[in-house]
Amino acid sequence: MSKSSPNILISNDDGIQAPGILRLVEVAQEFGTVTVVAPDSAQSGMGHAISVGKPLRLHHEVLQNGLPGYALSGTPADCVKFATGVLMDELPDLILSGINHGANSSVSSLYSGTLSAAREGSVQGLPSIGFSLCHFDEAADMSVAQEVARVIIRAALDRPLAPGRLLNVNIPFLSTSDLKGIKITRQAKGKWTEEFDEREDPFGRKYYWLKGRFDLMDDGTDTDEYALNNGYVSVTPMMHDLTAHPQMADLVSWNLSL
Amino acid sequence: MSKSSPNILISNDDGIQAPGILRLVEVAQEFGTVTVVAPDSAQSGMGHAISVGKPLRLHHEVLQNGLPGYALSGTPADCVKFATGVLMDELPDLILSGINHGANSSVSSLYSGTLSAAREGSVQGLPSIGFSLCHFDEAADMSVAQEVARVIIRAALDRPLAPGRLLNVNIPFLSTSDLKGIKITRQAKGKWTEEFDEREDPFGRKYYWLKGRFDLMDDGTDTDEYALNNGYVSVTPMMHDLTAHPQMADLVSWNLSL
Repeated sequence: MSKSSPNILISNDDGIQAPGILRLVEVAQEFGTVTVVAPDSAQSGMGHAISVGKPLRLHHEVLQNGLPGYALSGTPADCVKFATGVLMDELPDLILSGINHGANSSVSSLYSGTLSAAREGSVQGLPSIGFSLCHFDEAADMSVAQEVARVIIRAALDRPLAPGRLLNVNIPFLSTSDLKGIKITRQAKGKWTEEFDEREDPFGRKYYWLKGRFDLMDDGTDTDEYALNNGYVSVTPMMHDLTAHPQMADLVSWNLSL
Repeated sequence: MSKSSPNILISNDDGIQAPGILRLVEVAQEFGTVTVVAPDSAQSGMGHAISVGKPLRLHHEVLQNGLPGYALSGTPADCVKFATGVLMDELPDLILSGINHGANSSVSSLYSGTLSAAREGSVQGLPSIGFSLCHFDEAADMSVAQEVARVIIRAALDRPLAPGRLLNVNIPFLSTSDLKGIKITRQAKGKWTEEFDEREDPFGRKYYWLKGRFDLMDDGTDTDEYALNNGYVSVTPMMHDLTAHPQMADLVSWNLSL
C-alpha cells in the first residue's frame, strides 16, 4: 500500500442518504480517511451529466454512522469535480462510487450516474471504482457486497490501476456460499428496447414513462452479463477514451474532402 | 446510396429552437425525409443522461423553415429513444445530432448532450453522427459548417459505418478559404481543471458556478484538438463499448478472490 492511511473520496448517484453509500463508507474507513461528497438527491440515469449554467449549493450532512459529509445540489460528476477541485486539500488516492442500488452492466454503464463519478475520477487521473449491487431494493442486505468491496479496495490500494482507467464492479445479489467468485469481464453488447408507457393526466394531456426491456446481444462467456447471470462478481476495466481506434483507418479510406 | 430517400432523424442538445438544428435540418433535407425530435429546452452538459422516474411530455413544434418537429421534455438520449421506440414507423437510416453551438472535442465528448444523442443511436445499431461548431455564439454563421455536414452526410449515406460506431465531427469556425481540410482523429487526452466560482446570494448563502480551464495533455498530431487548432475539421470514430480491453489481462493477474 502506497500510504499508511490513504485518502478515499466516496460519491454515488442514489444521494448522500442512500443506504448503499453508508455501506461503502463503512468498508472504506477500514483502509483510510474517507471524504464523502455526494448528490443531495437521487441522480439515477444521469449519465456523465455536469451542471452547466446552473449554480450549485453545498450542504453539510452527517451520515448515519456519524461521519460528516458534503451534499451537493449537482450530479455525481459534479461531486467529483467539486471534491477534487475545491474541498479536498490534497487529491484522493482512490475514488469510490456506490454502492449503487441496481446493476450497471452492459450499456447501462453509459446511463449510470454511479459510473460517471468513477469515470470523472479517471479523467482527473485518479484510480476510481464504481460498485453496484444487482438489487433495486434499498433495504437489500449489503453484507456480501461489502465483503466484495473490501477485497477490491484492498487490491486497488496495493496495485496501480493504469492511468485513465476505472473499474466497474457489479455484484450479484447472492449469499457468500452461492457466490462463485470474481470474473474479469468486458461490457456485453446489448440494448434497452424502449416501451414508453402512455398515460393521460387529470387535464386530458398525454405523458409518457420511459420503461424498457434489456436485450442481451452477446453470447460471450467473458462479459459482465455472463458473469452476473452465472453467480460471479463482474469486474470490468473501463476507459474514458471513446475513440473507436480500429475504425480510424476505415474512415481515412472514405477520402473525405471539402 | 442504399435508398433513394433515406429517413433521417435529427436531434440536438441546445433545444429544438436553437439555430444549429435548423441549419442541420436544411442540409439533411437535401438527402431525404427528415424527422426532428429534440429537447424542448437546452440540455448542454447532460452527458448520456436519461429520464428515470420522471414522466415525459411531447409537444408539436414547427421549425422556422416550416418543418413540423417534436419537442420532448427530456434529454437528447431520451429523444433518440422516443423517436426510434415510439414516433417513427420505421427505424431511421441515419441519426444526426447538432449542429452544436460549441466544440465537443477531447473529454468534452463525455459531457456532451449532442454526442449522447448520436451515441444512443449507435446503441440502437444505427449509423449516427454528432456535429459541433467551435463557436458558442448562437448567431454564428453556420454556412461553412453546413458545407462540412453535407460532405459527411453524403459519405455516411454512401458507405456503411461499422455497427455500434458513431462519428464525432467538430468544425473550426473558419471561412472556407481558411479551412485546410478534414482529418480523421482520435480523442485527445485532456481534462477540465475546475475553478468553482464562489458567490453569496442575497440571503447570505454561498453558491458556486462550475467553470473550468481545459488542459490538453496530449502532444499527438492525430488528435481532435490538434486538427481543430490547425484549421482542420476533426472526424473521430467513436464507440459505446467502454471496456479497456488491454487492461483485462492486467486485472486477471491481480488474482482477485473472495
